[in-house]
Amino acid sequence: MAIFKQLFDEATSTFTYLIADEQTRSALLIDPVHEQYDRDRRMLDELELTLKYVLETHVHADHITGGGRLRHELGAQFIVGKGTGLDCADRLIADGETVTMDGITLQAISTPGHTDGCTSYLWNDRLFTGDTILINACGRTDFQQGSPENLYRSIHRLLSLPEETLIYPGHDYTGHRVSCVAQEKAISPYVFGLDLAAFAEKMQNLNLPKPRRIDVAVPANTHCGGADVARAAGETEAPATKVC
Amino acid sequence: MAIFKQLFDEATSTFTYLIADEQTRSALLIDPVHEQYDRDRRMLDELELTLKYVLETHVHADHITGGGRLRHELGAQFIVGKGTGLDCADRLIADGETVTMDGITLQAISTPGHTDGCTSYLWNDRLFTGDTILINACGRTDFQQGSPENLYRSIHRLLSLPEETLIYPGHDYTGHRVSCVAQEKAISPYVFGLDLAAFAEKMQNLNLPKPRRIDVAVPANTHCGGADVARAAGETEAPATKVC
Repeated sequence: MAIFKQLFDEATSTFTYLIADEQTRSALLIDPVHEQYDRDRRMLDELELTLKYVLETHVHADHITGGGRLRHELGAQFIVGKGTGLDCADRLIADGETVTMDGITLQAISTPGHTDGCTSYLWNDRLFTGDTILINACGRTDFQQGSPENLYRSIHRLLSLPEETLIYPGHDYTGHRVSCVAQEKAISPYVFGLDLAAFAEKMQNLNLPKPRRIDVAVPANTHCGGADVARAAGETEAPATKVC
Repeated sequence: MAIFKQLFDEATSTFTYLIADEQTRSALLIDPVHEQYDRDRRMLDELELTLKYVLETHVHADHITGGGRLRHELGAQFIVGKGTGLDCADRLIADGETVTMDGITLQAISTPGHTDGCTSYLWNDRLFTGDTILINACGRTDFQQGSPENLYRSIHRLLSLPEETLIYPGHDYTGHRVSCVAQEKAISPYVFGLDLAAFAEKMQNLNLPKPRRIDVAVPANTHCGGADVARAAGETEAPATKVC
């Protein structure tokens, strides 16, 4: 039996996931948020867990990853999709490769579309989709390396998994927490009855405002959160080489 | 690792759940539907599973249980909540008692309200709620032994489980498949912001039509599906004593 927790950052509507081995107390976090460092650290301490890995689903545009500081303070390894090309990462994980932590194994599934390097992670029948699939929605394709065509292919690749596969998204703005493959196929307006052309047209006409924090978040996350760790620590120079 | 499947009967919008031990191939079904006997039997055969138990969440009013025939044909034990008082059952399970099948354990949680004998089953972090909690909804309280007060207490007892606890309901009419405790607390109009008085008033003013099959389903299910098994077999007398 593993420990599993779904955490929520109200400010950016971001989910962070904890998976830990109950026996060995080894832990990993998926998509931690920099401003939630204290919450995450407290949780790890209370549960007497040792953080081994931080897995990122992509280079986020709406929040700075907590992975930089968690690596700096706790020695966790920073893992992100190969398609990101981030040379600050401890490991660039490719499609089909796995992260193994004692009795827990996660498989990386490359799911480009929202960004080039987007990666989903499959743990048994639980799928962490980042911004590739949101509940009744999906990630945007109008910034970074957004591509409706790639996103459409990635969404449908994920939805070819067994019907019961649980979907844990990177964000939700409406109180939803979990879905599954059968549910998204049945009711998501970004899936149900949409072919590639209709999906691409829908994505190109969302007319959403620019993400509020993109100009801070993307540069910081391109350094695995390093730049922001420096600011938090009151340093004057960007310590990318130090924490990445 | 266990085998888990969520099956759907279109005619009555009923979910049936399969849980099986991957090593020993022992299986149980929660809330099978009589008309889906062939589907369920085929699935068991294809997966090379031996059905050991049928668990009922309650005496259904909208469909006849498949448990009678499955017990008759495959020798599975029929388990239902103690509060149903069904003397045809192999076991009347009380609050807190468990069903153990090799490495799989389900705990019964007595959740009266929709009917007196309603029972939910907790398997690790997956909760099978029958008609006590539906996604964004709940079971009716205007027939059988319906009680808004009891249902309110049962819903809130279940929602005191950890936030990540997955909710697998007995029915859905809108394409939803799965929820969790945090999600229902956040968005269900039968939970969020409703105290007991407001909930009871809401339940008493639903003005829903009488369930279409109630006059057939309840008598059959009161005999653990026995009466319907007899009809399916072309017998002229009710064989309650034979299959119950």
